[in-house]
Amino acid sequence: MTKKNLSERLAAGPVIGDGSMALTLEKRGYCTAGPWTPEAVVMYPEAVRQLLREYVRAGADVIQTPCFYSSDKKLKRGKVTYTAAEINDAACKIAKEVASEGDDVLICGGISPVESFVDGKGRDVVRKEFENQIEVFIKHDVDFLLAEYFGYIEELEICMDVVKKAGKMAACSMRIGPRGDLSGVSVEDCAVRMAKTGALMIGTNCQFDTNAQLKTLRRIKDALAKENLSPYLMCQPPGYLCPEVECTLTGQRHLPEAPILLETRILTRFEAHQFARSAYELGVRYIGGCCSTEPHHIRAFAQELAPEKKKSPPAEDMCPAFGALLVDSDIPVIRKRNTKEYWYSVKPGSGRPYNSPLVNVQAD
Amino acid sequence: MTKKNLSERLAAGPVIGDGSMALTLEKRGYCTAGPWTPEAVVMYPEAVRQLLREYVRAGADVIQTPCFYSSDKKLKRGKVTYTAAEINDAACKIAKEVASEGDDVLICGGISPVESFVDGKGRDVVRKEFENQIEVFIKHDVDFLLAEYFGYIEELEICMDVVKKAGKMAACSMRIGPRGDLSGVSVEDCAVRMAKTGALMIGTNCQFDTNAQLKTLRRIKDALAKENLSPYLMCQPPGYLCPEVECTLTGQRHLPEAPILLETRILTRFEAHQFARSAYELGVRYIGGCCSTEPHHIRAFAQELAPEKKKSPPAEDMCPAFGALLVDSDIPVIRKRNTKEYWYSVKPGSGRPYNSPLVNVQAD
Amino acid sequence: MTKKNLSERLAAGPVIGDGSMALTLEKRGYCTAGPWTPEAVVMYPEAVRQLLREYVRAGADVIQTPCFYSSDKKLKRGKVTYTAAEINDAACKIAKEVASEGDDVLICGGISPVESFVDGKGRDVVRKEFENQIEVFIKHDVDFLLAEYFGYIEELEICMDVVKKAGKMAACSMRIGPRGDLSGVSVEDCAVRMAKTGALMIGTNCQFDTNAQLKTLRRIKDALAKENLSPYLMCQPPGYLCPEVECTLTGQRHLPEAPILLETRILTRFEAHQFARSAYELGVRYIGGCCSTEPHHIRAFAQELAPEKKKSPPAEDMCPAFGALLVDSDIPVIRKRNTKEYWYSVKPGSGRPYNSPLVNVQAD
Amino acid sequence: MTKKNLSERLAAGPVIGDGSMALTLEKRGYCTAGPWTPEAVVMYPEAVRQLLREYVRAGADVIQTPCFYSSDKKLKRGKVTYTAAEINDAACKIAKEVASEGDDVLICGGISPVESFVDGKGRDVVRKEFENQIEVFIKHDVDFLLAEYFGYIEELEICMDVVKKAGKMAACSMRIGPRGDLSGVSVEDCAVRMAKTGALMIGTNCQFDTNAQLKTLRRIKDALAKENLSPYLMCQPPGYLCPEVECTLTGQRHLPEAPILLETRILTRFEAHQFARSAYELGVRYIGGCCSTEPHHIRAFAQELAPEKKKSPPAEDMCPAFGALLVDSDIPVIRKRNTKEYWYSVKPGSGRPYNSPLVNVQAD
Repeated sequence: MTKKNLSERLAAGPVIGDGSMALTLEKRGYCTAGPWTPEAVVMYPEAVRQLLREYVRAGADVIQTPCFYSSDKKLKRGKVTYTAAEINDAACKIAKEVASEGDDVLICGGISPVESFVDGKGRDVVRKEFENQIEVFIKHDVDFLLAEYFGYIEELEICMDVVKKAGKMAACSMRIGPRGDLSGVSVEDCAVRMAKTGALMIGTNCQFDTNAQLKTLRRIKDALAKENLSPYLMCQPPGYLCPEVECTLTGQRHLPEAPILLETRILTRFEAHQFARSAYELGVRYIGGCCSTEPHHIRAFAQELAPEKKKSPPAEDMCPAFGALLVDSDIPVIRKRNTKEYWYSVKPGSGRPYNSPLVNVQAD
Repeated sequence: MTKKNLSERLAAGPVIGDGSMALTLEKRGYCTAGPWTPEAVVMYPEAVRQLLREYVRAGADVIQTPCFYSSDKKLKRGKVTYTAAEINDAACKIAKEVASEGDDVLICGGISPVESFVDGKGRDVVRKEFENQIEVFIKHDVDFLLAEYFGYIEELEICMDVVKKAGKMAACSMRIGPRGDLSGVSVEDCAVRMAKTGALMIGTNCQFDTNAQLKTLRRIKDALAKENLSPYLMCQPPGYLCPEVECTLTGQRHLPEAPILLETRILTRFEAHQFARSAYELGVRYIGGCCSTEPHHIRAFAQELAPEKKKSPPAEDMCPAFGALLVDSDIPVIRKRNTKEYWYSVKPGSGRPYNSPLVNVQAD
Repeated sequence: MTKKNLSERLAAGPVIGDGSMALTLEKRGYCTAGPWTPEAVVMYPEAVRQLLREYVRAGADVIQTPCFYSSDKKLKRGKVTYTAAEINDAACKIAKEVASEGDDVLICGGISPVESFVDGKGRDVVRKEFENQIEVFIKHDVDFLLAEYFGYIEELEICMDVVKKAGKMAACSMRIGPRGDLSGVSVEDCAVRMAKTGALMIGTNCQFDTNAQLKTLRRIKDALAKENLSPYLMCQPPGYLCPEVECTLTGQRHLPEAPILLETRILTRFEAHQFARSAYELGVRYIGGCCSTEPHHIRAFAQELAPEKKKSPPAEDMCPAFGALLVDSDIPVIRKRNTKEYWYSVKPGSGRPYNSPLVNVQAD
Repeated sequence: MTKKNLSERLAAGPVIGDGSMALTLEKRGYCTAGPWTPEAVVMYPEAVRQLLREYVRAGADVIQTPCFYSSDKKLKRGKVTYTAAEINDAACKIAKEVASEGDDVLICGGISPVESFVDGKGRDVVRKEFENQIEVFIKHDVDFLLAEYFGYIEELEICMDVVKKAGKMAACSMRIGPRGDLSGVSVEDCAVRMAKTGALMIGTNCQFDTNAQLKTLRRIKDALAKENLSPYLMCQPPGYLCPEVECTLTGQRHLPEAPILLETRILTRFEAHQFARSAYELGVRYIGGCCSTEPHHIRAFAQELAPEKKKSPPAEDMCPAFGALLVDSDIPVIRKRNTKEYWYSVKPGSGRPYNSPLVNVQAD
């Protein structure tokens, strides 16, 4: 059977992306907070393979090659002795292996921003870095490319220009909040410029939470409509709530809890359901997760949109949505907690009456 | 090299147990909320193996055979077609395989309460059920037995009587809070009766949070001292905070969020550090985790007690304590967040100003 | 018409006391935070008279002479140039004047603890101080005496011995929490010893909040029942919530907010209703208020117990319970907020998502 | 001595207004929640006089005639048998009497919106109603007029046109939030139109909290600057925090707690200090209070701006700022709580861990 490509899938209905790699592997013991580089693909391939497998099982239609932040410069920062080439090659192999276990999974090659841009090394150096990143994806013939986590629309435009030359289907997304990109370009202008790169799909990822992303996506949608542009919309939010950072340019790092004390803000699976529904209703067609979204979040996205996708995630066998099998509990009071209505009626506590729900952040 | 047994280890210093199986596998897609039975050991052995491996990597000195709730009766409730014998055998094999990858890991056979006791089937039926549970552990020659999660001291006494006959080193723990066991036997009386079973190690696990368990353990310690009893103390708390349920007999199930909306109450890794230190100072010598404690919690226990254990967990290579390698971040503000002092100074938020920290629970 | 005395009233049904003087006058500009002495009775008599009048209008059956902390020693601390004799005389006159405006108001002479007791000056000095305090009440022929706010049962016993000689009806109350009096005498022992002074009415006031006082009163009631003692029970809680301080001996002062940043913890009028009902059901027959209870709290007590008292407070003309006249609002949505059911269903917010509900206190 | 008029005072430095009448009198037992009409000026003049006196003592340079909502239509709604004329006359007399007790207090005649405007009765009817309101102020020769609490800029313009004819100094303010007036006129347009009425002073009052008002005032200031308009700015916030309602047009009434369960949101005196400072720094020259601001809030405004005003409020004798006389407490731990630094460092709790800080409101 030939797999449908990304474009065909987006035309047919919602597409589910995968979730967090670095932050989740860090909790599991296979990634270092700070450099966040993916040398685990060489050192502990089983652990990475298992996590990707869990995303497929959770319903991801796409898995990304786990090589975010794998540039020689970043690896040096993390004192990693493997080369970026070695790591990226291993990452692609793992992704292909896991994808082959599923019956219909696409592989996405992720391209990340480069330090040479902010360092002002000039367009040629920047282009060269992007070309290096793309090389391995061409070699392994990934299904599409995603330029993601960009803070500057200008850098993203350079990147997309390089991507275009690679002849692959391409998408792009930015980590922007209400104040626009890091140099102050408005959300609306970023939207139009992203669309004008010719990307099949544009949108947002990380640094601002699900609620903030929905607000930003609504503005993106309106801006595109004004200009008669119609790329597909995508969204990959982080897996925790941080309304405080909406007043900042750079988002989550302003939380004093970032990056290893964010557990208490974790998105619940039911908030994940509601987010997927809201995003879909807004017109978003690709929904995955960034920092800290775990398999059960991706599963919630896939289960929420199962009617539209006309298929349920593989994990449905053991983990149907809304705790449907709690009816088999041996505890009477738990048995009734098996419906969407029940779970949507509960407002979960933090268990921490001595903490404040929000913390003060300093705007940048 | 001959491995030291549990008794020798407890005499030498703190021993770290492993963490949650059922709740964590559920998030990963391999366990069903409701029956919570471990058929994944047969159906998805790689997933179970990987999780156990993560606990070893996190610093667990002991892993439990992943066969909690694997009785024919419970399996039937979950409509599982494998027999308890098949599952338990597979569970033991996985545990042995993972233990053999570590250089010094003990295997614990866990024995859980039986429905026939609460159903009033009589002492002989109850004994028979415990004998069945133990059989597989004898066959696989586990390092010690742990009767855990018992709600009734009387049932635990029957169990320990059976255990004793097995000739294995044995420990036991109860899921009790301030009000004592489910039939109203006080914490103090439970403590004395647990000790009098001859268990090498006694204590508490689950249903009440870390703070509640410390309070209970202090009372256990005092009660034992009065009677000149001196078993080792153990503790396996759940991985979330729920102070509200201290007024109940049965604990966490009283939370409307139980069992699949508890994410927002998750213990932070720094709270895990502090718990391990407090428990150790109180005299607890075996510290593991129950429901929802994940690898990074176990790692925090092992890292906190590394000086006393004179060894660090394997994951120390990538994940040193207190984010020590955040110093390698490319974000200046994050670089300084690399000390115990910093992390202990941050009170994490919930990100949810429209939720209350605590929820009303109805006492039983 | 002859007024019924306190004993007759308690036999007939619940009796409502008045509310806060010092803390409320401080907000109004007539008392100094720190010394809290009542020189306003001489300097600004109109302001004091008005507040007492508001309590009568709110439904207080009793008003206390506003001379708390008026000893020469305390006045000296506050650098007040009036003598205690002048102040106490003025206080009694104001109380009598206001009482005469109502048709059926009793006057209570309040006796407070003396520094000479904690300073260890010996029983004779202590007795002498109490005799001085009582003198003015005898002169003005108050309706009964109340020894209140005592931290040491021993000091209270000395006081009550002096009071007895005065030949007045007498009551007494202590500012105690779960840990008992300041020298560690248990709640139960305090209860029995208070009753054995021969007081008509005993109970608690201030330093621990309404919920804590209900718990303490339940223990007092049980302790009295065991000894076949049956004084009437009284309670005068402060007007704010502070569950944190239950672990301390001395109560509210442990809050970092004490004494002039307690506004955010203020009891709502509906919590006041519920407290009055709970206290009455527990058997409490005299309910007034201490620190920060304002006229609308006292009104809530009186309105809640109006059926039992068979009379409504004078303020009922303008301020019926549960916002009954909101039905006359010109705002449609407000009009429906005129029932007990509505108000009991609302959980009020703090408006402060950056603050924690509870604060850390250091136990003494 | 001739009193300086409002214009001279504003030119010289900050001017302090008075605080809440209706909501505060309701707590004291002299006003009815729902109609909120001021018949107390006839029925209980002592109570009203005392509250105004407290505002003067707290440092108010201006007191308003206590006749808000005193129109025959409103009085009828409240089933009040006195006429508006009787009430307004009594209100003016009380205000003059209290003002004469202070040495330098101005009297402000407050004009409120009329139902005939929203009812669409036409400009002539509306004008007539305003003329009726003003009449009594002319008769009693108040120092200036304030059209306040207007929701529609158009209605305010009609009112100011009438006011202008009265030949009195005049100010006006609107109860607007971020979304502008009730018909959707933006904050900026309202600002310019208010200024163009020729009012000496313009600004905001009530319905949105201190933080929201500061945001609105900043926009007002910027809008005026653009048009080279320079009336003085004024602000009269309510005395509680309600960030939730910023998304609504009509403000506080959206809180389920409105109007008689707002106690828990009460502004602290230290928040009042900070608000006064921020408002002054923003350029606001007249600061008073609306709903629920009590004497201690007004005192905080006056004390915070004492350096700029070169005078302290009369209550300074007993109630210096920041609890300076707590140093005279007999409790050691309290003695040190006598500085601005201390009080600014404390984040007060709500004492209610089972409540959420914010509540859901439905936008209009």
